Amino acid sequence: MAAPDRPAAGSGVIETLAQLGEWELIRRLGAFAAPGRFNDDAAVLEPPAGEALVVNTDVLVEGVHFSEATTAPGDVGWRAAAANLSDLAAMGCPRCFGITVGLTAPGCTPWPWVEGVYGGIHEALLRHGGELLGGDCSSGQQRQLAITALGSVVSNRVIRRGDGRPGDLLVASGPHGLSRLGLALLLDELSDDLASPLPAALRQDALRCHRRPEPRFDVVAALQRCQPEATTWRVGGTDSSDGLVAAAEAIARASGCIAALDGRQLPLDPRMASLPMAQAWCLAGGEDFELVLALDPAWAHRLCGRLAGCQVIGELRGGHEEGGQGHPVVWLDSGEPVAATLGGYQHFH
Amino acid sequence: MAAPDRPAAGSGVIETLAQLGEWELIRRLGAFAAPGRFNDDAAVLEPPAGEALVVNTDVLVEGVHFSEATTAPGDVGWRAAAANLSDLAAMGCPRCFGITVGLTAPGCTPWPWVEGVYGGIHEALLRHGGELLGGDCSSGQQRQLAITALGSVVSNRVIRRGDGRPGDLLVASGPHGLSRLGLALLLDELSDDLASPLPAALRQDALRCHRRPEPRFDVVAALQRCQPEATTWRVGGTDSSDGLVAAAEAIARASGCIAALDGRQLPLDPRMASLPMAQAWCLAGGEDFELVLALDPAWAHRLCGRLAGCQVIGELRGGHEEGGQGHPVVWLDSGEPVAATLGGYQHFH
Repeated sequence: MAAPDRPAAGSGVIETLAQLGEWELIRRLGAFAAPGRFNDDAAVLEPPAGEALVVNTDVLVEGVHFSEATTAPGDVGWRAAAANLSDLAAMGCPRCFGITVGLTAPGCTPWPWVEGVYGGIHEALLRHGGELLGGDCSSGQQRQLAITALGSVVSNRVIRRGDGRPGDLLVASGPHGLSRLGLALLLDELSDDLASPLPAALRQDALRCHRRPEPRFDVVAALQRCQPEATTWRVGGTDSSDGLVAAAEAIARASGCIAALDGRQLPLDPRMASLPMAQAWCLAGGEDFELVLALDPAWAHRLCGRLAGCQVIGELRGGHEEGGQGHPVVWLDSGEPVAATLGGYQHFH
Repeated sequence: MAAPDRPAAGSGVIETLAQLGEWELIRRLGAFAAPGRFNDDAAVLEPPAGEALVVNTDVLVEGVHFSEATTAPGDVGWRAAAANLSDLAAMGCPRCFGITVGLTAPGCTPWPWVEGVYGGIHEALLRHGGELLGGDCSSGQQRQLAITALGSVVSNRVIRRGDGRPGDLLVASGPHGLSRLGLALLLDELSDDLASPLPAALRQDALRCHRRPEPRFDVVAALQRCQPEATTWRVGGTDSSDGLVAAAEAIARASGCIAALDGRQLPLDPRMASLPMAQAWCLAGGEDFELVLALDPAWAHRLCGRLAGCQVIGELRGGHEEGGQGHPVVWLDSGEPVAATLGGYQHFH
């Protein structure tokens, strides 16, 4: 992959996209891709033979999904790529082999912002695999990224939301709520009496989780390594981008089950316990990009024993028809439905 | 593919996206895809074995690429899909096997507009192949579609811009300028003395070219059928979405050639000859979505003899270094460079 072609430093002139024009912008963006990638109408690639193709598109809009006030351009790019790659991991892909990026931005947008975004995308792909395959750019009122990620998976190792069964244990691949805490720190939402006692290391972890989330391809690899012998692959799951309860609900609905979450086993970073909103953020903060899995108990225990951070958070139970009425998430200790306000973030409010 | 799930007619209430909410919107959009397609984090599909994957992303923004004043929602959807599919045809794909759609729209957007757009996408896919694989939706200030199309091609039958050679003939797959005329009619740009003499059939053709362009998968099939025996596949080409001169220029630059266009052989609909801007629209009107190909003369003549509308428009000549200075498009009859103002449309102006 070519090193990005940066303009001469120190010139002091910040160019806008209107000044560059479309062709020069595409030429500069092409420097973030392999040589020749941007030369044709579309990208040609050879996916791994014998594997199913997995494709996912995410749209990220300034003011909705990111804000210049809280997110540096490199983090915008990393997060956009990571969110998309997380969906591939949630389908069981062991890696990504490429993405396309549709960029929209006003003509007054400074080139360094765009360069920073593509730099962040480049870093995420260097770390997690995949290359920039192509894309498009257009002027528009609002900055926006539309990313399509391509991965592949051996056909009989797909993870699907609907592959959970009654008796499965629900496993979270890591703590939840840290990303929401990171956002709160960036927005200065916490009063001093809540913010001051937070350890510096927790603050750093929360900011990192928010700015540079990691798609959990490592969980997919661990799942494959610790599959119990003489079992066939059956893994229910999704990622927790919309929140932990939303993930459990998605699995429960698609699997025709009830997700019974154990309130004593919330995947909460213990250093957050002093915060009164810790539980709400854990359940519905969103954007943690962990995997939530429904596994046969033997497999679940093997995974949790081998991969630090994985923990059982509840189980699937029968009794909820697919497409049935009523909320399919309950608490194990009380049996009461989780309040709908914890059900995750919705757009178009 | 499921029939779109339309709301009860005659209720008289036009719902907005904000009223529907994200989950209901996704549920309704899922009715335009095969059952179950929208149930998971990403789509899983099996591309044809042994073929290379081709992927392309286009972004279309309201006010830049389409306008509610001139384009009905069904046409917005069709055009968006067709523009993307045209890029697959330009790479030599005989068909598309699927697209993803990233939709951005303000919360006040009426559901019938979105339904119309997806209806138009659905019609284009029914006609040209492919299915709606998935996508994303977000609120945003401006209506926008980011479409990623996936196709496949036998690896040794790819069409590339850089595969032209000196001595190749340049072939256009159809007339150019009709789409621009259609836009002019919609915008009421033509004075009465120019508009009145235009035949009704020409008006209809121009409006159809603008509203419902057809990706030229049939040209790819014809190219394959009429490949001269004992030759290996070598086809330079691109589509003319950015204009005819821009297409010739792209092929010439990538192939290290000069594109010599024959001013006496412009691919102009003869019924447009009375319009003083006919030549300019033919050369740089854009959005005709024809293919422009660089072919060995024997192949070029066979193609033009077998596929109505295909015609030789010039030839490639040596003498232009790849990445060299100067405009690589000249006129065959005068040798003068084509004026840069005919070089096609650029964003970020």
